[in-house]
Amino acid sequence: MQSSNYKLGRFFLGRLKHDSELVRSVVNFARGKKVKMAVFTVVGAVKQARLAYYDQASHEYQKIELDQPLEIASCFGNLSLKDGKLFAHAHAVLADEASKAYAGHMIKATVFAAELHLQELLGKKLEREYDQTTGLALWEFRG
Amino acid sequence: MQSSNYKLGRFFLGRLKHDSELVRSVVNFARGKKVKMAVFTVVGAVKQARLAYYDQASHEYQKIELDQPLEIASCFGNLSLKDGKLFAHAHAVLADEASKAYAGHMIKATVFAAELHLQELLGKKLEREYDQTTGLALWEFRG
Amino acid sequence: MQSSNYKLGRFFLGRLKHDSELVRSVVNFARGKKVKMAVFTVVGAVKQARLAYYDQASHEYQKIELDQPLEIASCFGNLSLKDGKLFAHAHAVLADEASKAYAGHMIKATVFAAELHLQELLGKKLEREYDQTTGLALWEFRG
Repeated sequence: MQSSNYKLGRFFLGRLKHDSELVRSVVNFARGKKVKMAVFTVVGAVKQARLAYYDQASHEYQKIELDQPLEIASCFGNLSLKDGKLFAHAHAVLADEASKAYAGHMIKATVFAAELHLQELLGKKLEREYDQTTGLALWEFRG
Repeated sequence: MQSSNYKLGRFFLGRLKHDSELVRSVVNFARGKKVKMAVFTVVGAVKQARLAYYDQASHEYQKIELDQPLEIASCFGNLSLKDGKLFAHAHAVLADEASKAYAGHMIKATVFAAELHLQELLGKKLEREYDQTTGLALWEFRG
Repeated sequence: MQSSNYKLGRFFLGRLKHDSELVRSVVNFARGKKVKMAVFTVVGAVKQARLAYYDQASHEYQKIELDQPLEIASCFGNLSLKDGKLFAHAHAVLADEASKAYAGHMIKATVFAAELHLQELLGKKLEREYDQTTGLALWEFRG
């Protein structure tokens, strides 16, 4: 396994704004704080969401539109760099009023109310690069 | 986004008691250790659980009773203060014998076996206050 | 609740190898780094997986074979010792192309692409021991 180890930086708790877009809010917040790498979790509820499933054969994302209010039963991921810019990779499990779960790659969601827990990581810059085998932008750990 | 940053305090691993109530156990444990803020995860299994879904229009919680043994596929949340008292906000994904997922806001659950991972956070006191837009008790980050 | 507190050690980010077995990869990676205790999360996608549900009455695991490509919507757990060897306890929520969730105890999975976030914990050795009430190997916190 390629890997590297990092020092723990600041730990942030945050309250996402009602009606903001969840993924962009996390990225913008982190950029504003000069965070370069992080792991984070989010708990709360959204008004609607777009998840995705990556087709491992065709190498294309299939979008799943969830146009209804949902609990964020789980949402976590990481921040690193892609094309030199801060990039969030997050997956989520959302839940409807019958506790039915909808899960996948989180593209975007409209916040009803949500709490962010973010652990900054300090160390060597971590960039994503195109990986031919999977068609995905994966971490490249250098030197 | 309103936010604040915290120092990392103690990290606890714990084994919840068989037949104890999960959410109350986490709160009582943390209170006993003088923890004021934390993020935590729980993994294990429960004998039964009560989840909830927050109706974003009516501002009321709808309860979902799950009267069967379930795996805790995911459970995480945070501890902060509400009305001056330590309060747990946790969401969960539970799973039955066919791997079907039940997800939502975790109100309570009876522990079969469960492991707690809890990161204490140190810093300015963090209180929840009533938010008119959502009808929820949300974090207020002061000064 | 039995518990103990730990110091935070190294924080690793890692990229699991395509076609590797997920759970064994995490254990082998940690062993190679001399990690004795940890909490970890994994995000990504798998080609197939075997989950399990623990029957609380018969004390037997029921296996659930998922022979299809799935997103890892959530996967987290811990590392401690069992029979003197490093042991991973992980649960997961997987998702298919319709965002349907499959959740439970993670026995093994074949990695398509996956990212590991692992927090090493330092302190007293933590061993699992057989617990008669549940039939499971649970943490024993000593003196």
